[in-house]
Amino acid sequence: MIKNGERIDDLNLKGLLIIQHEAKFKFGMDAVLLANFVHAKKGDKIIDLGCGTGIIPILIAGKTSDTYIYGVEIQKDISDMASRSVKLNKFSDRIQIINEDIRKIPEILGYEKFDIVTSNPPYLPIKTGFDKKNEHENISRYEINGDLEDFIKSAFRLLKFGGKFFMVHRADRIVDIVYNLRKYNLEPKKIRFVHPYVNDKPNIVLIESKKGAKKGTDIMKPLFVYKENGEYTQELLDIYGKNTIMEV
Amino acid sequence: MIKNGERIDDLNLKGLLIIQHEAKFKFGMDAVLLANFVHAKKGDKIIDLGCGTGIIPILIAGKTSDTYIYGVEIQKDISDMASRSVKLNKFSDRIQIINEDIRKIPEILGYEKFDIVTSNPPYLPIKTGFDKKNEHENISRYEINGDLEDFIKSAFRLLKFGGKFFMVHRADRIVDIVYNLRKYNLEPKKIRFVHPYVNDKPNIVLIESKKGAKKGTDIMKPLFVYKENGEYTQELLDIYGKNTIMEV
Repeated sequence: MIKNGERIDDLNLKGLLIIQHEAKFKFGMDAVLLANFVHAKKGDKIIDLGCGTGIIPILIAGKTSDTYIYGVEIQKDISDMASRSVKLNKFSDRIQIINEDIRKIPEILGYEKFDIVTSNPPYLPIKTGFDKKNEHENISRYEINGDLEDFIKSAFRLLKFGGKFFMVHRADRIVDIVYNLRKYNLEPKKIRFVHPYVNDKPNIVLIESKKGAKKGTDIMKPLFVYKENGEYTQELLDIYGKNTIMEV
Repeated sequence: MIKNGERIDDLNLKGLLIIQHEAKFKFGMDAVLLANFVHAKKGDKIIDLGCGTGIIPILIAGKTSDTYIYGVEIQKDISDMASRSVKLNKFSDRIQIINEDIRKIPEILGYEKFDIVTSNPPYLPIKTGFDKKNEHENISRYEINGDLEDFIKSAFRLLKFGGKFFMVHRADRIVDIVYNLRKYNLEPKKIRFVHPYVNDKPNIVLIESKKGAKKGTDIMKPLFVYKENGEYTQELLDIYGKNTIMEV
């Protein structure tokens, strides 16, 4: 089940596990926050763009029932790890990992077929501090195979009218994000900034947009990660400890 | 100096005063936060779009030296109050109030002549809860004489390349704001959300944009108005008590 250099990590949610590789990109808090931010209905057809090792499909599958989730990952060996994690968690009937470019996926799976698109895309434009040493890190971190607009364009194409796009990204990209979402008729309806401490600027942002929705955005209350004493806030502990069904 | 129904309020800054009318729109915390958010250089040519009773030009004149400030207000009697407040504060050589439509002002004063544009525009689209009872309140609150895009378009036209636009608005209009700023090449460089309490969603947002600037936005640390016990936070008291020159 696992190959050289890989390990199995416990997700602390209903016994779910994930295969990761020491030297390759591992999931972070962002993915967990995004999975918690998503709210799905029974029967929803969901797709995660740039799924990496499958963390978001697996967490959503664990937190919802009767949903069907695709995960799209361009890196062959990472998507292979994701496929094996799906089997390991016995989710083969609910999650399908596809080794493909997110820009091509609407042509392959069809336009307007999805209720929900999720994405934790690469955060950085290629020009910023790009270094060629670790190919896996680079593909996961930099906009090499699709930039922000490509992810948004694919989300737009995949979603049914009224469907929702949930994304996590760096807070300092908020203008790019909001501009492109509106450009593709994915109106941002909820924005939540994540701040390490109460008096810190936010480093992460969670955005829920809806295809074809009218204007008007709920800027939610801030999500703080740490208390002044350096411990996790109760809300963060609740998110990490949550194993309730997230259906609305 | 003052007419029937008017009163003179003390701004608690270097003895500055302002004439307001009981039954007409009076300035709020937003204007004070905006004036404090603005940073001007010596010699800057500044224009405030929709200046009401002149609160922002007067506060900026009080906090800077050697700047020249125009205030544009479409309501005849409100702009008259602003003009009298300018005289009252002996700012006639530094502030000029113009009774005009902000949409026409670039044609009148000329394109690309200003270093700084400021605005605390009407916050609400006409359709939302519009009621015709108080004409003054309506003109100040609703987008009757120019909507958000009109204010941004005029700011774009008035600003020199590299000039800055400082605006205060409702937090839930952030998508409209950011979308239109980028559309008019006024890249948002700093965004600061104002929250009543630490765990509240923000109700106000301050935005600094720069004409022709490259992408990338600093989402600043939150500004909290009240402490848990209901008293003002130290930062808010500092803003209200500040009477230092704001030059950079």
